[in-house]
Amino acid sequence: MYAAASLDTWTRRRLSSKTLRMVMKLYDGRMSWNGRKVRLLAAELGLELERVALDFRQGDYRAPAYLAKNPNGKIPTLEDGDFVLWESHAILKYLAAKKPERALVPADARGAALVDQWLFWWTSGVETGLNLLLVERMIKPFLGKPGRDASIIAEAQALLDRFLPILDAQLEAREYVLGDLTVVDFAMGAQLDVASMLEVPLERYAHIQAWLERMRAKPYWKDA
Amino acid sequence: MYAAASLDTWTRRRLSSKTLRMVMKLYDGRMSWNGRKVRLLAAELGLELERVALDFRQGDYRAPAYLAKNPNGKIPTLEDGDFVLWESHAILKYLAAKKPERALVPADARGAALVDQWLFWWTSGVETGLNLLLVERMIKPFLGKPGRDASIIAEAQALLDRFLPILDAQLEAREYVLGDLTVVDFAMGAQLDVASMLEVPLERYAHIQAWLERMRAKPYWKDA
Repeated sequence: MYAAASLDTWTRRRLSSKTLRMVMKLYDGRMSWNGRKVRLLAAELGLELERVALDFRQGDYRAPAYLAKNPNGKIPTLEDGDFVLWESHAILKYLAAKKPERALVPADARGAALVDQWLFWWTSGVETGLNLLLVERMIKPFLGKPGRDASIIAEAQALLDRFLPILDAQLEAREYVLGDLTVVDFAMGAQLDVASMLEVPLERYAHIQAWLERMRAKPYWKDA
Repeated sequence: MYAAASLDTWTRRRLSSKTLRMVMKLYDGRMSWNGRKVRLLAAELGLELERVALDFRQGDYRAPAYLAKNPNGKIPTLEDGDFVLWESHAILKYLAAKKPERALVPADARGAALVDQWLFWWTSGVETGLNLLLVERMIKPFLGKPGRDASIIAEAQALLDRFLPILDAQLEAREYVLGDLTVVDFAMGAQLDVASMLEVPLERYAHIQAWLERMRAKPYWKDA
C-alpha cells in the first residue's frame, strides 16, 4: 500500500514534469548562426530546449505547418506552450527573462535600453553587412546562382568598415559589450565566430578578438 | 511678508520645474524618418522633448561633440539627464517605459516579446530594403555619386516583396500591428508614410494602406 502510493506519486510527478513543465521547442537550421545564438544562450542559462532541426534543402522552411508558425519561412522559431516567437534577438531577450536573477537583460530601464540599443545597432549595421556577404558568397553560389555581386559586396564591406571599429572601441575597456555579460554578447558572438568563413578578417580589431576569445572559452561554446 | 513668502515659493517651484524635471533632448535631423519615429511617439505620449536639429550638410553629424554622444554619427540620439541612448527603436521603447499606464510596450513577457519580434523583423527586413533604396535613390545622387545601382535596388526590392506581404496579412484582422497600438506602429508608420518618395508603391497592400491611414489620422501626425 505504502509502496503503491509512493509509486503513484512518483509517476504523477514524472508525468507532470513532462506535461506541465512543457520543454520549449526551438525550430532551428543545421548551420544557422541565428539558431546558434539561441542555443548558446540557453546553454549559458541552463535552459532546456527541444531542438527541431529543419533542413532548408528538403523544403522544411516552406512546409505549410512551419509557415503557420513563422510566416517568414526563416529560423529560428521558439515555441513555449501555445506561445510562438520568432526573430533570434527577441528570443534571446525572452529566454533571459526566464532567469531574471542572471540579469542577462538588466532589470533597470537604462540597462535594458542599452541592450536594445546594441541589438538594434547590430541588426541594422554589422549584421546587415554579414547577411549580404552570406547571401553573395555562400547561399547564392550554393543554389547555383552567380552571386558575388561586386556592388553588394562593396555595400556590405562599407557597413562592416563603418561599424566594427565602434564595437572595437566599446570593447577596449570592457570585458563584454555592456561591461557585464548580456544577451548582446550572444547575438554578436555567434556571428563573429564564423566571420572568417565569409572572408571578413578581424585582425585589425584587437578588442573584438580578445572578447571573442572570452566567448569561445565558455565551456558550452563548441557544442551548442 | 505673506506676499514675499508666496513669491519665494513660486520662484523656487519655477526653478525646480526647469532644473529637476530636466526635459529630455532629442538630437535629430531635418528630414530623418528615424527622428520622426521618436517625435511621433513623444506626441502620442505627451512627452516633452527639446529638439536639437542637426544639419547633415553642415557636418553636424561628424562634429566631435556629437560623436562623443553617438560614435556612429547618426541620428537620433536621446539625452535624458546624464543618460545617452541611440538607435530609434531603443529610444521608442525607453520613452514608452516612461508612461507604463499607456502600455505602448505591453507589461507582460509575451506582449513585450512580440514588440521585440516585430521591431527586429522590421529592422532586418523591410527597413533594410528601405534604407538601401534611400541611399541609392536619394542620398548618393544628392551627394553627387552615381547611386541607382541595379543590383542593390534589386536586392532591396526582393526584401520588400518578401516581407511586406507578411505585414499586410498581419494587419488583415487587426487595427494595429499587435492588435492594440504599440511602439511598433510608430517605427513602421514613420517610414511607410514616405514610401512613395522612394518609388515603393503600397497599392497592392490594402491592409497596410488602411492601417497607415489610421496612423495618419492621429491629430499630431502632420506636425510631429
